[in-house]
Amino acid sequence: MVKAYAALKRGQKLQPFEYNPGELKSNEVEIDVKHCGICHSDLSMLNNEWGLTRYPLVPGHEVTGLISRVGKGVTNLKTGDKVGLGWHSGYCMTCPSCLDGDHNMCTLQEATIVGRYGGFAEKVRAQSESVVPLPDGLDMTSAGPLFCGGITVFNPLLQFDVKPTDRVGVIGIGGLGHMAIMFLNAWGCEVTAFTSSDSKKEKALKMGAHHTINSRNSRELKKVTAKFDFIISTVNVKLDWNTYLETLKPRGRLHIVGATLEPLDIGAFPLIMTQRSVSGSPAGSPLSIAKMLDFAARHHISPIIETFRFEQVNEALEKLASGEVRYRVVLSW
Amino acid sequence: MVKAYAALKRGQKLQPFEYNPGELKSNEVEIDVKHCGICHSDLSMLNNEWGLTRYPLVPGHEVTGLISRVGKGVTNLKTGDKVGLGWHSGYCMTCPSCLDGDHNMCTLQEATIVGRYGGFAEKVRAQSESVVPLPDGLDMTSAGPLFCGGITVFNPLLQFDVKPTDRVGVIGIGGLGHMAIMFLNAWGCEVTAFTSSDSKKEKALKMGAHHTINSRNSRELKKVTAKFDFIISTVNVKLDWNTYLETLKPRGRLHIVGATLEPLDIGAFPLIMTQRSVSGSPAGSPLSIAKMLDFAARHHISPIIETFRFEQVNEALEKLASGEVRYRVVLSW
Repeated sequence: MVKAYAALKRGQKLQPFEYNPGELKSNEVEIDVKHCGICHSDLSMLNNEWGLTRYPLVPGHEVTGLISRVGKGVTNLKTGDKVGLGWHSGYCMTCPSCLDGDHNMCTLQEATIVGRYGGFAEKVRAQSESVVPLPDGLDMTSAGPLFCGGITVFNPLLQFDVKPTDRVGVIGIGGLGHMAIMFLNAWGCEVTAFTSSDSKKEKALKMGAHHTINSRNSRELKKVTAKFDFIISTVNVKLDWNTYLETLKPRGRLHIVGATLEPLDIGAFPLIMTQRSVSGSPAGSPLSIAKMLDFAARHHISPIIETFRFEQVNEALEKLASGEVRYRVVLSW
Repeated sequence: MVKAYAALKRGQKLQPFEYNPGELKSNEVEIDVKHCGICHSDLSMLNNEWGLTRYPLVPGHEVTGLISRVGKGVTNLKTGDKVGLGWHSGYCMTCPSCLDGDHNMCTLQEATIVGRYGGFAEKVRAQSESVVPLPDGLDMTSAGPLFCGGITVFNPLLQFDVKPTDRVGVIGIGGLGHMAIMFLNAWGCEVTAFTSSDSKKEKALKMGAHHTINSRNSRELKKVTAKFDFIISTVNVKLDWNTYLETLKPRGRLHIVGATLEPLDIGAFPLIMTQRSVSGSPAGSPLSIAKMLDFAARHHISPIIETFRFEQVNEALEKLASGEVRYRVVLSW
């Protein structure tokens, strides 16, 4: 039996929960969970905001731990390996996306907490292809948030060929945005942080931003017309997107990773006049995660975290929901 | 004096008009106009829809003709060369866009009919960098529309690396769309034409489309979920953009060249889930135009045109405005 924390129904607090994981499949590994980050999507799943939730729900998809068992067909991992597990816990490995290295867009992808039990537990299982070794030099306690929040903001740098000579912007300095600033600074870019919170401006500069701009002040935004090659938005609120488009250089890209619900009311002309793009992307493939971990280790990049014990999981969830976490929560056994 | 056709005021019909072009500048050429296409943007400029028009307005920016004079600093063209002139008649040559080969996004770009006299005339002048030689094998009568409408739909194939193995869609089978179908067929792609006009379906297949779909029929659109790598929209009306996004594969792109005025109400989730992009682009650089002309000559691609004499310019403009042109109008002396 696996000891875990689960919500038995929508809106209920998490409580201790045990389940029988059954036989370990040939292509699976079992991870002895040491730490697990909490992501906003855990909250969304707890509240069944996307209509995907099956209860009991064991959240948790920013796991770090040690491999405790490997299925008989597993060749890429062995018992004792330090590893992490993120949003995806399996791929079909044969669809065009998988064959192209885009496992994160596999049409049959399995998500760690959708229809299966996640990482708020002593053990969690996943297909071996979705589990990525932690390189030496990465701290196991703080590395968990890299596996979902981190890769969500790192993956676009790979996908859209962001260059060290680029001027880039990060909208929203929270769980995702603070990692984006650190990555982009180490990537060599000139980094501007867009935030509506004065209290975060000083902190953004310490994380590696070179400039800050009030994200809701159109006058400030107009001063940076045609300045940026790439802007990544991590917020889930509606902003003045067309003014942001005007801050992009020719060929510039406004990239959305924050799951804003209101449509993006993008004008056709700002796209047409100087060949701008608007795009989005999900969490990354196993190879993108491995590249991120290597990059983070080399540049000593760690998410800034607040830690709780697993028994404090409800307290931790409440703090995350309040918006007062700076900047990511990790649970530890 | 140069003989031309001009509108003296907004809303007036064109009438014969003469102007003194002054001294030929060192970096300019003079073109003896043989033919000139009419583009929807000529109508927009005649009606001052963009607030850019100075009257008298001599429209015309799809010129083909012969070089009659060259400025003393011109090295790339000589008297007698067969050439064409499109939307742009000059570039600063030193801004970052010009230095990067993106002259079409030069911040100081000069447009052939904005603040200067265009191609509905016996002569027209332009900076030599903006004038592109016609390769052998291209018919001078029908080549004019390539210089604005043609390059508008060809340029994205270069810019966004459309591949011959791609499945592509063309929304709107008019002046721009019919050229897009011919280019994409010759490019090697599987081409689907989206049109709301039943009468154009058969014609689209003859132009080189492999399939047709009713652009306004959501049920038909839903049958092609995740089918396309690239869709180019040439229409200026609001469509169900989010349903179109769902017809794109992972990494797919919805590319807008039709100047639709209503905002594109793009959902963030369809972008995020499978890394899709929405983008736009203007007419192309001189090098892109040269590549297009070479490609068109090799593949025997000519715009499908209706021809009028220059004296019939008002009749031709009326027919274009009526939406009944199949598919592009060219005026000839």
